[in-house]
Amino acid sequence: MTDPKDPHRKSVLNEIVFPNQTNHYGTLFGGQALAFMDKAAFIAASRYCRRTVVTASSDQVDFHTPVRVGNVVELYSRVIKTGHTSMQVEVTMYAENLLTGEKRLCTQGLFTMVALDEHGKPTSIPPLKEPPPPDPDFQV
Amino acid sequence: MTDPKDPHRKSVLNEIVFPNQTNHYGTLFGGQALAFMDKAAFIAASRYCRRTVVTASSDQVDFHTPVRVGNVVELYSRVIKTGHTSMQVEVTMYAENLLTGEKRLCTQGLFTMVALDEHGKPTSIPPLKEPPPPDPDFQV
Amino acid sequence: MTDPKDPHRKSVLNEIVFPNQTNHYGTLFGGQALAFMDKAAFIAASRYCRRTVVTASSDQVDFHTPVRVGNVVELYSRVIKTGHTSMQVEVTMYAENLLTGEKRLCTQGLFTMVALDEHGKPTSIPPLKEPPPPDPDFQV
Amino acid sequence: MTDPKDPHRKSVLNEIVFPNQTNHYGTLFGGQALAFMDKAAFIAASRYCRRTVVTASSDQVDFHTPVRVGNVVELYSRVIKTGHTSMQVEVTMYAENLLTGEKRLCTQGLFTMVALDEHGKPTSIPPLKEPPPPDPDFQV
Amino acid sequence: MTDPKDPHRKSVLNEIVFPNQTNHYGTLFGGQALAFMDKAAFIAASRYCRRTVVTASSDQVDFHTPVRVGNVVELYSRVIKTGHTSMQVEVTMYAENLLTGEKRLCTQGLFTMVALDEHGKPTSIPPLKEPPPPDPDFQV
Amino acid sequence: MTDPKDPHRKSVLNEIVFPNQTNHYGTLFGGQALAFMDKAAFIAASRYCRRTVVTASSDQVDFHTPVRVGNVVELYSRVIKTGHTSMQVEVTMYAENLLTGEKRLCTQGLFTMVALDEHGKPTSIPPLKEPPPPDPDFQV
Repeated sequence: MTDPKDPHRKSVLNEIVFPNQTNHYGTLFGGQALAFMDKAAFIAASRYCRRTVVTASSDQVDFHTPVRVGNVVELYSRVIKTGHTSMQVEVTMYAENLLTGEKRLCTQGLFTMVALDEHGKPTSIPPLKEPPPPDPDFQV
Repeated sequence: MTDPKDPHRKSVLNEIVFPNQTNHYGTLFGGQALAFMDKAAFIAASRYCRRTVVTASSDQVDFHTPVRVGNVVELYSRVIKTGHTSMQVEVTMYAENLLTGEKRLCTQGLFTMVALDEHGKPTSIPPLKEPPPPDPDFQV
Repeated sequence: MTDPKDPHRKSVLNEIVFPNQTNHYGTLFGGQALAFMDKAAFIAASRYCRRTVVTASSDQVDFHTPVRVGNVVELYSRVIKTGHTSMQVEVTMYAENLLTGEKRLCTQGLFTMVALDEHGKPTSIPPLKEPPPPDPDFQV
Repeated sequence: MTDPKDPHRKSVLNEIVFPNQTNHYGTLFGGQALAFMDKAAFIAASRYCRRTVVTASSDQVDFHTPVRVGNVVELYSRVIKTGHTSMQVEVTMYAENLLTGEKRLCTQGLFTMVALDEHGKPTSIPPLKEPPPPDPDFQV
Repeated sequence: MTDPKDPHRKSVLNEIVFPNQTNHYGTLFGGQALAFMDKAAFIAASRYCRRTVVTASSDQVDFHTPVRVGNVVELYSRVIKTGHTSMQVEVTMYAENLLTGEKRLCTQGLFTMVALDEHGKPTSIPPLKEPPPPDPDFQV
Repeated sequence: MTDPKDPHRKSVLNEIVFPNQTNHYGTLFGGQALAFMDKAAFIAASRYCRRTVVTASSDQVDFHTPVRVGNVVELYSRVIKTGHTSMQVEVTMYAENLLTGEKRLCTQGLFTMVALDEHGKPTSIPPLKEPPPPDPDFQV
């Protein structure tokens, strides 16, 4: 278990790609990939600030390689920058062929998450004092 | 039925927001909104070129207003520009409170979709001769 | 955007047919088609009366043509008659092959929806003064 | 286990009603009820003729009582009449409050299912020699 | 309808196996089978004690035969023993090929369910005076 | 990224608990927890042997603490022992309250997975030379 007090903590998600998430060529919908990435960003930001968080924006996301039904996608997410009430979360998504072990980068993106108080208003969060150290998983 | 031969044809989707698509505050996940938008872009681009299409990228998407469980989201999508093998699709998403009729813009975004041939390689598509006329729904 | 004040307003839904909604021959289950139609009727009736609505009955529904996995179904729904507390909603469902553009009528049906007040009792709704004008989409 | 050779065999389904199947008042959508009923008809008809079956039509279905989230619905289905290639299936749906044991009839309906051969064409089925005996569950 | 007052009452569930519940070889995931079995145990235990029940443990479960996509699984569940606040529920799962009628035992297992009061604390339940009579369906 | 060549490699899954996975008290169904655990075992075993794997059995699983809707469950899985064609996979599941950071052990279990060749027959796998070193996450 990574140290839950570590502000640079990285969250890891693994998802199996099912037929209902793919087009009729058996390729993962881009929108489903974006939903996986947002879920990873939601978990990383919630863990960072321990408040309710919502997505304020997603940056441009490019899809490099198709993901096939039956593949496992592995996502890494971590907060890399903070504002007064917002967090920038870096998300990386790999696709793995379980039978061959081949693992390829699919996409990488930045999501901006905002912390809300109990009235649904943006609320301040602890600042991230320094950016996280380079992470081999993010060197792509 | 809008004219299926009209290159400026607009697709319309309506989705009911369910508890499994919301966080524990009953607000639609941003990733689910992105998945709805990509689905709208997929349908508009498929109808434009009548080929298999995949998402190449999504542009920056800002979320203006939260969507609540039980709301209906209405999405409009249409191709606004073409390249040799790609289409730029404009997607607009509104949220409607079914009981009051209040309808608010949630977000708007551009998705780039690429047409593929039967071998999964990008394939040329008919050019869009002129941009679509302004559409009152997109005037936001 | 169709005029939200127009009592003859038509709602439009588009749904992609997924493997989990089909039998082992890749054909949409009739029950899933009925669920899509009821969803379309629910949205049209809610928009008409701006109250909570529930389905009181569905009339006989005949399925004319099978829908295949990967097809998009497009549904149109509108209120065509009202009682004191109930609305009759006409729903039409087409199936479209996204690659060829072929679009065929699948089925058409009438759903009776009842408006409820906050105690779950039937409540009066505004009368529909005249039946909607013929709609080319419904001419099937 | 009921005798699988008995042409009057009754199939039994139990389903837990989940939030994603209900409107914002926690009441099961009529369309979801119709989907449960069609699933019950599909299983009964498949077991009767041991061929691929599809829904040709559903008769009028009236909803007598609302079903709440958390309820269990119990469905009974059996073939009551046959044509050359078609079966008439009677489906009854009860709702049960698991905590009180109260069980009420929700609805009852007839579905016509058609048997298909390997080319998707209607194919003959064994005739049902006599209608099934009265079943206490169907006496409603 | 089996007698709802009969403490030896058996619950019956039928589930169609869908692509999203199978691995890329079209075989039902063991975890999905366990989820079906727990659902059957939940219904049987709830019906026995008419209280909220939660799963305290599942015993060893062996999977004898693979279940294919498109198969129907039929589950039987009944309470066979009670403690002060707990019930032991026997669950049997068969897989049926709808086209051939072949029906094979997949697995059988014991689940221990605990009754809870309104504060979430274990609460006493009526004792099962004698074990249920042998049931031909459980003779496997 | 953990070394994909490391036979002691641990897989990590994070899942958000949704309303459709909980009973009417908002507590995760035991069967859904078992499905999450089997998914974690499937991924760990597939990665170990790079063959198709199926679940042969699950050992007794005790549920220590209820998991609430909105919680995140984190699962760790790794192969701890091998037979000629089978792998024993240890799975641990924690529940985390995203707002407080409180994280509690829910359950731990052993799943036996078997590797299959292209004909669906058990096939030999590389032996695990030594058991994995103690892992702080598994010290519970």
